[in-house]
Amino acid sequence: MTSSATSPVLETARRAKAAAAVLAPLPRTVRDGALLAIADALRARTEEIVAANADDIAKARANGTSEAIIDRLTLTPERIEAIAADVTKVVALPDPVGEVLRGSTLPNGLELRQIRVPLGVVGIIYEARPNVTVDAAVLCLKSGNAVLLRGSSSAYASNTALVAVLRDAVEAAGLPADAVQLVPGESRDSVKELMRARGLVDVLIPRGGASLIRTVVEESTVPVIETGVGNCHVYVDEHADLDMAVRILVNAKASRPSVCNAAETVLVHAAVADAFLPRALSALAEAGVTVHGDETWQRVSDTVLAATEEDWATEYLSYDIAAAVVPDLDAAVAHIRRWSSGHTEAIVTRDQSAARRFVSLVDSTAVMVNASTRFTDGGQFGFGAEIGISTQKLHARGPMGLPELTSTKYVVTGDGHIR
Amino acid sequence: MTSSATSPVLETARRAKAAAAVLAPLPRTVRDGALLAIADALRARTEEIVAANADDIAKARANGTSEAIIDRLTLTPERIEAIAADVTKVVALPDPVGEVLRGSTLPNGLELRQIRVPLGVVGIIYEARPNVTVDAAVLCLKSGNAVLLRGSSSAYASNTALVAVLRDAVEAAGLPADAVQLVPGESRDSVKELMRARGLVDVLIPRGGASLIRTVVEESTVPVIETGVGNCHVYVDEHADLDMAVRILVNAKASRPSVCNAAETVLVHAAVADAFLPRALSALAEAGVTVHGDETWQRVSDTVLAATEEDWATEYLSYDIAAAVVPDLDAAVAHIRRWSSGHTEAIVTRDQSAARRFVSLVDSTAVMVNASTRFTDGGQFGFGAEIGISTQKLHARGPMGLPELTSTKYVVTGDGHIR
Repeated sequence: MTSSATSPVLETARRAKAAAAVLAPLPRTVRDGALLAIADALRARTEEIVAANADDIAKARANGTSEAIIDRLTLTPERIEAIAADVTKVVALPDPVGEVLRGSTLPNGLELRQIRVPLGVVGIIYEARPNVTVDAAVLCLKSGNAVLLRGSSSAYASNTALVAVLRDAVEAAGLPADAVQLVPGESRDSVKELMRARGLVDVLIPRGGASLIRTVVEESTVPVIETGVGNCHVYVDEHADLDMAVRILVNAKASRPSVCNAAETVLVHAAVADAFLPRALSALAEAGVTVHGDETWQRVSDTVLAATEEDWATEYLSYDIAAAVVPDLDAAVAHIRRWSSGHTEAIVTRDQSAARRFVSLVDSTAVMVNASTRFTDGGQFGFGAEIGISTQKLHARGPMGLPELTSTKYVVTGDGHIR
Repeated sequence: MTSSATSPVLETARRAKAAAAVLAPLPRTVRDGALLAIADALRARTEEIVAANADDIAKARANGTSEAIIDRLTLTPERIEAIAADVTKVVALPDPVGEVLRGSTLPNGLELRQIRVPLGVVGIIYEARPNVTVDAAVLCLKSGNAVLLRGSSSAYASNTALVAVLRDAVEAAGLPADAVQLVPGESRDSVKELMRARGLVDVLIPRGGASLIRTVVEESTVPVIETGVGNCHVYVDEHADLDMAVRILVNAKASRPSVCNAAETVLVHAAVADAFLPRALSALAEAGVTVHGDETWQRVSDTVLAATEEDWATEYLSYDIAAAVVPDLDAAVAHIRRWSSGHTEAIVTRDQSAARRFVSLVDSTAVMVNASTRFTDGGQFGFGAEIGISTQKLHARGPMGLPELTSTKYVVTGDGHIR
């Protein structure tokens, strides 16, 4: 495939593949040792990291970047300490590598085992959060993978400093330094090259906005895991506890609107519209949320803006929500199947049979019954760590922890067995 | 994405997606009922199928198709009976849909379950074996998926007849007929359209030659599962039982050379070359195998042809084998990592530590210790059925049974839980 061509990006990928071969058979103690070395090195070299980060921040200010994005970009000694503390938490997580998933003795006496093995080389494409550089590298190393990091060009100085720290620590712990590499180049071309490095890179995980993810999915020949686009719905059923429904709706929308598991549309059964809409509108207004509603919602209050098809399709990531009244549960499901990004949908109902039907008919990563959409999260699910939330159906669906960063291998042991 | 465009292929995919939504929540009894109806219908309508098949055979003969391929294409009443009997065996297999893979009560009392759900719409692209039409459809239906079948144009009449039988049976059993569809059009364009039907088709499984699979992998925006290319190796270690090694080598190469789990290269540790090569050559010659060897092999016999790099890369699928002597186990592993397609590799050794090292360093779907490569097979592994052998690392690796035709969904049940 592309393995005969050369470029700085492909060279990086080739070195990652070689490092992955060294890394895969190493036992847990060595990999965990590298993680502890990383935590120590982050603490010891905090000044150097903060200084590099200051360059990125100065550039961002000069470019007129918003304070919200500058805040995401900023590394302080406290934040670096928190990152280092998170690394030590990953050390304590169970090792996915070597887990036996299936095993049996076949009728002919052959011993069959299916065991977890690292994927090999994992490429992460992400935006201006330098903490992802460490998180992603640590989760990949813990699961025995080499990692190629392609962060935002706006965090290039920070990422360069962080990766230098990571590589030194990894090497001191006896792993190949090339197990952690920053993809060279700040332009979009380096992303394109990474997407064509089939045979060198085993999987690409784009983390970021919908347009980045769409580009990678459309153009990559390397297998991709889609993450994080969340057009999530809350459906308030005919038999909902309306107090609970208001509480869940406000939490799902307004507790943190910028994240993928926040709700973007509320659908209400016609039978409870009269009772629910005024209460929902007042609670949403109090939380600072603008409602983009259908005609029924608009009739209840002047504050409701008219919703168009675009609103059904939009992941606002802001204090906005689309709102519609539906004739029944099946209409809610049809709306969701049409417009959802397949992330998380919630039903609020007291009716067991309605809950069962909703769970069975909704084709999304996670379905919540009487709970906020905000719970779709690796930490909340008890996975201890998360590299992203897959919204695709192959390989991994939902919050991806360490096991989702592995593949499997069959080991078959015999005594001269032939067919 | 492509869902606003129209064409006969996309219309087919759209109908499949609608059928998949109906199919997914149906209980096992209904799906199994459809399978039994298919078995009955195949038996009842054998004449009609054989007549359509005769058209394909006549065309193939007129085109000068080889007898081996005509044999694969041929359906007789006996073969149709065997296909129907296989369908009833699938009925008896455990239902993958609804299996709870993980479950826990979270610290806040939320109940978390990860359950298996159908993938949705599965597209199968395959060559001139009309039995695959029934096998693939039945495995997809059993696992709750709608299936789009794109067989070889040389089997178009047979496939059309078979799919008509399948659709009638499925519909009579209460499933949507569109759960089983033949992709219209005999040209390559229909494959191209299928590959771009992202959002309508959930996965494409190409079954067939390396060039078909490469095309699909390179051009498809629909996720693909690579199957079946097998450049498999047998490594005869320094500490091998040489009688066993000869037996395994001959079995791996010559018991059925046309299949993907047949061996294509033998690597021999230098320490046993003098003892092993003459015995291997004599046994291989007896089995009708031509050896393409390195200089050491060539020195042993005039019958050995000179191997080039192309031989290391070739999946012969014939009575040919590439052969080399390597200085040690690590050199064997390096050769395999360089040239293997990642299907199956075998080591023959008495040395436990050599076996352990080989298993750990070889990055292939299956690793055999003292057993023939021919055992990598869903039937042999006890899966009861197989839709193909995945040689990729994401989603499924190795023989794919019913569970590999599913995805998962998280169901989270609370009592008004918010974050």
